Amino acid sequence: MTRISRIELTPVAFADPPLLNVVGVHEPFALRTIVQVHTDDGLVGLGETYAADDHLARLAAVAEVLPGLDVFDLNGLRRRVHDALASGGATQVGGMLNLQDPVDVVMSPYEVALLDLQGKQLDRPVVDLLGGAVRDEVPFSAYLFYKWAAHPGGEPGAWGAALDPDGIVRQARTMIDQYGFTAIKLKGGVFEPAQEVEVVRALAAAFPEHKLRIDPNCAWTVETSVRVARELEGVIEYLEDPTPGIEGMAEVARYTKIPLATNMCVIAFAQLKPAVLADAVQVVLSDHHYWGGLRRSQLLGGICDTFGMGLSMHSNSHLGISLAAMTHLAAATPNLTYACDTHYPWKTEDVIKPGVLPFERGSVRVPRGPGLGVELDEDALGKLHEQYLAGGIRKRDDTGYMRTVDPEFTPNTARW
Amino acid sequence: MTRISRIELTPVAFADPPLLNVVGVHEPFALRTIVQVHTDDGLVGLGETYAADDHLARLAAVAEVLPGLDVFDLNGLRRRVHDALASGGATQVGGMLNLQDPVDVVMSPYEVALLDLQGKQLDRPVVDLLGGAVRDEVPFSAYLFYKWAAHPGGEPGAWGAALDPDGIVRQARTMIDQYGFTAIKLKGGVFEPAQEVEVVRALAAAFPEHKLRIDPNCAWTVETSVRVARELEGVIEYLEDPTPGIEGMAEVARYTKIPLATNMCVIAFAQLKPAVLADAVQVVLSDHHYWGGLRRSQLLGGICDTFGMGLSMHSNSHLGISLAAMTHLAAATPNLTYACDTHYPWKTEDVIKPGVLPFERGSVRVPRGPGLGVELDEDALGKLHEQYLAGGIRKRDDTGYMRTVDPEFTPNTARW
Ligand SMILES: [Mg+2]
Ligand SMILES: [Mg+2]
Repeated sequence: MTRISRIELTPVAFADPPLLNVVGVHEPFALRTIVQVHTDDGLVGLGETYAADDHLARLAAVAEVLPGLDVFDLNGLRRRVHDALASGGATQVGGMLNLQDPVDVVMSPYEVALLDLQGKQLDRPVVDLLGGAVRDEVPFSAYLFYKWAAHPGGEPGAWGAALDPDGIVRQARTMIDQYGFTAIKLKGGVFEPAQEVEVVRALAAAFPEHKLRIDPNCAWTVETSVRVARELEGVIEYLEDPTPGIEGMAEVARYTKIPLATNMCVIAFAQLKPAVLADAVQVVLSDHHYWGGLRRSQLLGGICDTFGMGLSMHSNSHLGISLAAMTHLAAATPNLTYACDTHYPWKTEDVIKPGVLPFERGSVRVPRGPGLGVELDEDALGKLHEQYLAGGIRKRDDTGYMRTVDPEFTPNTARW
Repeated sequence: MTRISRIELTPVAFADPPLLNVVGVHEPFALRTIVQVHTDDGLVGLGETYAADDHLARLAAVAEVLPGLDVFDLNGLRRRVHDALASGGATQVGGMLNLQDPVDVVMSPYEVALLDLQGKQLDRPVVDLLGGAVRDEVPFSAYLFYKWAAHPGGEPGAWGAALDPDGIVRQARTMIDQYGFTAIKLKGGVFEPAQEVEVVRALAAAFPEHKLRIDPNCAWTVETSVRVARELEGVIEYLEDPTPGIEGMAEVARYTKIPLATNMCVIAFAQLKPAVLADAVQVVLSDHHYWGGLRRSQLLGGICDTFGMGLSMHSNSHLGISLAAMTHLAAATPNLTYACDTHYPWKTEDVIKPGVLPFERGSVRVPRGPGLGVELDEDALGKLHEQYLAGGIRKRDDTGYMRTVDPEFTPNTARW
């Protein structure tokens, strides 16, 4: 029996472009915590998660109670996390979301690390531990953002500005040329709906074979959502979080044939029953980082299948450990039939050794090495940890950062 | 990579007492199919399932397409079963139930055998592959039946007759003395409700510390169900399938505080959404034999947890391979908080080598050997197969057998 001997938690910061969204703009650095789970027989399992201060503190509290745990004991992991977090408290996820119960989000990177360890011990890829690959490559979407050319006072990045239809279409072209994506997602909620609809139409014209989606992150009222949904029928494959709340989404759903997707009103198991009873969402965007890891995300997938909801995958800014975990999970999930979201093209730094997760024709081939199939680059990890220490950001704050440019800025939630 | 090389299917018959139920009476022999999955590296995985002719034919059709499958590829198993059964058709399960879609019931014994093989390959018990044991022993219930002293023309068995309160209490005493059960289930639907309520009250008086349940298998109308439920409030922990159908159960549920349990109106994933929307059942009785195996049963468990339903476990007449599988599954399922049902005390023959699944204080200790932890007794298997060949029963038919005694008998469904 292989047991956990110790845990290493390393917060890192990596460069991030000024991507705009409903609550503001991405700061110059995005944060992640790299989790290394060591075993008494010398193996190391990897996980990756958020790095806000309160989350880091919870991860550390849990790290103390994990030594001695059998790497196959995922139920024991959950119990230990639950007991260690008995004090409770909400957790901020990805800048906009708050989870009432932190157990799933805190256990997730540890669960991924344990599956990585199981795979390494068995000389099997993680996908095999999840029931086996139903696809050898996992399609991702081109995740487009309105963006500035540069951070305030910074050097312009490679991507340039994108603040109008031409800019976004140019961004899409660059990303698709480079990665081969066959689906496109536009992060909206930045400009008034008419402009964002214009951009979607420009994308549809420029990429007639591509599947399209727009995600205004609840920037619209119910009325606006219904109007825009009707305008975009036949143009987009789903409409993501047009308006806040299960009730609001249910109201919109009554008046459009476009499937409504969410990673905002259903982000925890407790929200599934109300959403099903209200028939509020037709597609759930899974995300193993807050749904409790890969096995719990499979449960979510099974629930969507059972209750007639589609399944897609959400992404925050992330590094290669998460991309590997997302790929193994998606490969083992039969009803994950939409291209997954990823911020991967936006990053320029990583903590894993390169070369194992190439994008081809918009897809990532499932790594066949043991476990997650990725290896930590200790030098890169050290550098990004130094960057974390030096950068001073301790919690994502897109709104605060936007206010350094526009002191009057308030989030656009239900603004239009 | 370990691959399936060939499959052996062995139908067996084992002696069964004349246990009474809503559709008739158990025949002198119960049938099961023993599934042996051989691998190219010489391992054998075990599964156990029903043995009605049409089910056997489906198992055989699937057996032909399984060689070459990786033992970790449970998604591949499901796909191959689905493709091999493309012609469809309903499947009879356990004498009373019909499944519209045979994929889950046909894949189940193969999935169990693959998990057995995975465990043997890893030198891990199956419970570890299901997330680890949350309990070291699994509580079962004393499963009481109205019964005759002997099969028509046969020798009286060890248990004697039980056709009134005294007989059932005596039966309970014997079973509890021998096995240590702390929960009691009465199979009802045999006599009119007033007599069965009297028996439940007699059991409550004789075993005041034991949890009680009654399962009339839909023998009652909605009105009767409501009346009996109110009489038994505070006496039983749940009322199992008082009346037929999701609509009927929902109507009963509106008028009682006793949780309603089912293994009749919710026996497949497709029935979960209607049941949830109608708030028809408060406890689902899982059964890996028709819910698609152990991983799919875990999905059912997760769904019950997510949608606020309790979870218990159903049993048909079964042998030791199934008892082992049920025990591993129950041990790995945190929200399986009711004692599981089992017909195990009623059988006198088995196909596994004895000694690994003893009942202590009503519970079975989770086997810690590799895989399921049980070993086939080839001699016993041969004997029970001979018994199958000689006995002539090819499909369970409690009603037909009852009519050899009472030609006028019709099932008691919704009779009272
Ligand atoms: Mg979103
Ligand atoms: Mg029942």
